[in-house]
Amino acid sequence: MKAQSRILGVDDAPFTFRDEYVPVVGVVMRAPSYVEGVLTTRVHVDGTDATEALASAISRSRYRKGLALILIDGAALGGFNVVDIEALHESTGVPVATVTREKPDLAAMERVLRRKFPDWERRLETLRRKELIRVATAHKPLYAAVAGLPPRDLTEAIRRCTIRGALPEPVRVAHLIATAIVKGESKGKA
Amino acid sequence: MKAQSRILGVDDAPFTFRDEYVPVVGVVMRAPSYVEGVLTTRVHVDGTDATEALASAISRSRYRKGLALILIDGAALGGFNVVDIEALHESTGVPVATVTREKPDLAAMERVLRRKFPDWERRLETLRRKELIRVATAHKPLYAAVAGLPPRDLTEAIRRCTIRGALPEPVRVAHLIATAIVKGESKGKA
Repeated sequence: MKAQSRILGVDDAPFTFRDEYVPVVGVVMRAPSYVEGVLTTRVHVDGTDATEALASAISRSRYRKGLALILIDGAALGGFNVVDIEALHESTGVPVATVTREKPDLAAMERVLRRKFPDWERRLETLRRKELIRVATAHKPLYAAVAGLPPRDLTEAIRRCTIRGALPEPVRVAHLIATAIVKGESKGKA
Repeated sequence: MKAQSRILGVDDAPFTFRDEYVPVVGVVMRAPSYVEGVLTTRVHVDGTDATEALASAISRSRYRKGLALILIDGAALGGFNVVDIEALHESTGVPVATVTREKPDLAAMERVLRRKFPDWERRLETLRRKELIRVATAHKPLYAAVAGLPPRDLTEAIRRCTIRGALPEPVRVAHLIATAIVKGESKGKA
């Protein structure tokens, strides 16, 4: 991966379960931290349209061609609107990874999914399909699932666009913007 | 001004004159380009609330204390909602400057103000009150009005947070975010 590679970081905004939609923000950065562009879209809270919404926003974007990687904060947007990273990778032609700072608790997720969704098996299968990898950073590790890129290259790409803490800049800045859109001001950590 | 100084860049989103409000985005950066936080507010298109809206958003912000400078893209937000930089400086305690890439044409502005607004004299007086200064950059010059800071220090602050082209990073990134909020994707220049 070249030093000038562009990475799209994605995060959703805060929401309540009374909201129908949640805003989703994408930030295109050239490593380590130069902001090249910003995208917005929205997904249904607890819906099933996250993969399609991202694929559509990215595919029509003027930034798609230069993207080396799509980094999504968490395995799902807007609650349990699970992102199928393999499908997103295939439709965009860009490697896709989800990253979290806490190790995902799949057993706890399964309990919630079973209780809330008639299609829980499908959501769980998408969550489980990709192996969880531990990405060492200068800070605490990240947990990631990746499609279209060897784990070693993912680690290297994350390292290139991380300035402080464990979160890659494109994801950190997407979080700040998404929070400010809904709350009027960013706060806290992604 | 210290290298670690925080600068708030402000820009409004695209709008049409049928819109009642226009979103306004602020980006807090530590020079040259580290994004610390994002604020959003809104102002009336062609209204008179820009100064008050910015003062309010900044004064209640967790980022206010560390701010060394507020840099606003243009002398007005949402059309002719003129920012009184002296009043904004006084109410926030932070130096304030407006910057543009084109030299403002005050005669043309006066013609539009006279035609559109019963209170045109007041708006024009606010626009004219501060001397216009030319700020040399590595690229084309910027035109600025400043309150609360010597012109030399403004030039130095702008230089510190400019990476490419003439626009300071906090203003450039605020423009990208504001455009994406309304259009779904950023494009063009601030």
